[in-house]
Amino acid sequence: MKKSLGANTLAQPTPVWIIGSYDEAGKPNIMTIAWGGICCSKPPCVTISLRKERHTYAAVMLRKAFTVNIPSQAHAPEADYVGMVSGAKVDKFAATKLTAVRSDLVDAPYVQEFPLVLECRLIETLDLGAHTQFIGEILDVKADESVLAPEGHIDPAKLRPIIYTPGASQYYGLGELVGKAFSLGKGIGE
Amino acid sequence: MKKSLGANTLAQPTPVWIIGSYDEAGKPNIMTIAWGGICCSKPPCVTISLRKERHTYAAVMLRKAFTVNIPSQAHAPEADYVGMVSGAKVDKFAATKLTAVRSDLVDAPYVQEFPLVLECRLIETLDLGAHTQFIGEILDVKADESVLAPEGHIDPAKLRPIIYTPGASQYYGLGELVGKAFSLGKGIGE
Repeated sequence: MKKSLGANTLAQPTPVWIIGSYDEAGKPNIMTIAWGGICCSKPPCVTISLRKERHTYAAVMLRKAFTVNIPSQAHAPEADYVGMVSGAKVDKFAATKLTAVRSDLVDAPYVQEFPLVLECRLIETLDLGAHTQFIGEILDVKADESVLAPEGHIDPAKLRPIIYTPGASQYYGLGELVGKAFSLGKGIGE
Repeated sequence: MKKSLGANTLAQPTPVWIIGSYDEAGKPNIMTIAWGGICCSKPPCVTISLRKERHTYAAVMLRKAFTVNIPSQAHAPEADYVGMVSGAKVDKFAATKLTAVRSDLVDAPYVQEFPLVLECRLIETLDLGAHTQFIGEILDVKADESVLAPEGHIDPAKLRPIIYTPGASQYYGLGELVGKAFSLGKGIGE
């Protein structure tokens, strides 16, 4: 027997992604989101949701571009901080001592110290209420060599992404390897 | 110096969510997705992306409803299996010995054995290419008592959601508690 918890956003896991943008004045800014995910394989697209009152909202609307920066667990305090203060008031790069780097392909900065970066071109917006969805076509993914497996793919155990859990409002690390996708379930139903 | 990995979907973490629907004939079906996330707080909404050729695509289009079922790590083999076979050919509930329960509020089944369930009413679709985004308003969240903390919220360490990592194509468990959101970063920049 399941207990009803009402209409809310208690899904798990959600990501801890840092959105990079340049504001109207050209100042680089970053903010944290947990409402987002990959939304298309071809073209590769990612969706992020922002509130209209956010400094990043106006910046992405203006520049038609953003980056998704994926921090390692070691940068969880910085990831938390840039979600608590507004880029309208604070230079978050200066406050966190993180480094803004101009993207190669889009008009948005990325975070040098975060090991995985997606450069995104805004292709759709969808106003849903409190949040607006921004859909970005991923034009390039950049990764630090230190998080790559010998085969060339990103090694999750080296990347150590952070996981956010709504309701509990907690950050978690990545746990143990459970198994290989498209393999673990073989044999069921046979 | 970051290495370019090209235009692709190598973001982490992504969820392992099981989408429940009734097909045209009324048969309950489930499939796995990793392309999705929460997309609005008010009204509470979730986005999932499906390929047009999927059996679930036609079902959700027809019924205007779906469930998001969040399995615990113990059910990772079943979660993997229902992503590998088509509901057009296989009764996946029978094959996995999982139990379909009719939702209270929407025209879709949920999985009794999975501890967290979102009942969703389809409110928007957006064709992006290989995938179409389905946005569901979350009308209710249901949880097993066994995954609730004494304070009433969902305890991530009891839920044990599964994390998918594109590229590596691996499933991971939830790791250690890193810290409290809106708290861990306090003191930075002061």
